[in-house]
Amino acid sequence: MAGSRPALLSVQVTPTPSDAFWAKSQVTFKERSLRHGHAGRVIWFTGLSGAGKSTLAIALERRLFDAGRQVYLLDGDNLRHGLCADLGFSAGGRTENIRRASEVARLFADAGLICLAAFISPRLADREHARRLLPPRGFIEVFVNTPIEVCRQRDPKGLYARADRGEIAEFTGVSAPYEVPAHPEIILRTDLDSVETCIGRILDYLGHLEPPVTSL
Amino acid sequence: MAGSRPALLSVQVTPTPSDAFWAKSQVTFKERSLRHGHAGRVIWFTGLSGAGKSTLAIALERRLFDAGRQVYLLDGDNLRHGLCADLGFSAGGRTENIRRASEVARLFADAGLICLAAFISPRLADREHARRLLPPRGFIEVFVNTPIEVCRQRDPKGLYARADRGEIAEFTGVSAPYEVPAHPEIILRTDLDSVETCIGRILDYLGHLEPPVTSL
Repeated sequence: MAGSRPALLSVQVTPTPSDAFWAKSQVTFKERSLRHGHAGRVIWFTGLSGAGKSTLAIALERRLFDAGRQVYLLDGDNLRHGLCADLGFSAGGRTENIRRASEVARLFADAGLICLAAFISPRLADREHARRLLPPRGFIEVFVNTPIEVCRQRDPKGLYARADRGEIAEFTGVSAPYEVPAHPEIILRTDLDSVETCIGRILDYLGHLEPPVTSL
Repeated sequence: MAGSRPALLSVQVTPTPSDAFWAKSQVTFKERSLRHGHAGRVIWFTGLSGAGKSTLAIALERRLFDAGRQVYLLDGDNLRHGLCADLGFSAGGRTENIRRASEVARLFADAGLICLAAFISPRLADREHARRLLPPRGFIEVFVNTPIEVCRQRDPKGLYARADRGEIAEFTGVSAPYEVPAHPEIILRTDLDSVETCIGRILDYLGHLEPPVTSL
């Protein structure tokens, strides 16, 4: 393999000799953005199990699709059964799971879609890595900051109960850490606000957002 | 984790108790197909290094995009620097590379895009696995059947020369096998036909193709 990592989401790449081996799409990010009426982006939901990440992402996908946006939902549970079916839940397995999810989200953004990614993603470093794959304003971190007591009460998958019984090793918030985002673009409290209110806050944020810096 | 693998690309899934844990998108494959005017699909280019896979895929992407289609190109070289950067070129590494590419292609098809995948993908079993992830007519295998003598002559990356000097272990066609597709949907000869002619044959095939069986 030759060539350095290509700058996706960019239309201002200066070709270098080492780029010669890259299969370069002739369809630019700008062309896709103009057709869709919006730029490709990643909206990354992070938070504890039961915080409401998937619920919010599913509702937001519906709203964005109905508004004519190109949108796709990547979810931790779903990827775990396909792309990441070979990974466990050790610290290393979780980091690799998030790394792959980040790369896939980046590809979807490069394809011009608004990619909604809902992953516990407990490690700050893993999320910062995901952010660095995208240009400024191309990665929007949504911290679903539901208190663990509320998540426990909801326990939609019965996982907290299992973790308390010691049946699940390294369960985030119980026997494994969750590292709170340092500078998330949006913080939501699903225990205080309705899904509709939370979605409204994200849509409001998106409505005031300029395109990613490298896109146009 | 609970629940069996979900049927993507399907709108006729009967929910079962084990599906309860899945984050289910509320936007259906049918809705995406109706909006795009076409169904999501994978067009998989396979063949030797230098056969012309990327050249054809890049030209086809341009043509499909200009015709108003939602389309995205996945390429072996490119994925190797991101999603699959951790993999080597041993038999195991190559199989895992194609497995991940297949899963990502499936996600793009599920998102309603025509995903063009250009990978040497030398193993028949790996390609059959990729096919099984999609519904009938959702996976179109294009065998870029350029004779190795022509590929050697082109050698756009200088890889055959390096392989001949023993600098690359397990190079497909030189020191590692290429398993010819058993029943590819399309066979192309880039040594006999122009890029334009080859693209025309694929477009012609697509023009006569019904949607994937589960899509509508």
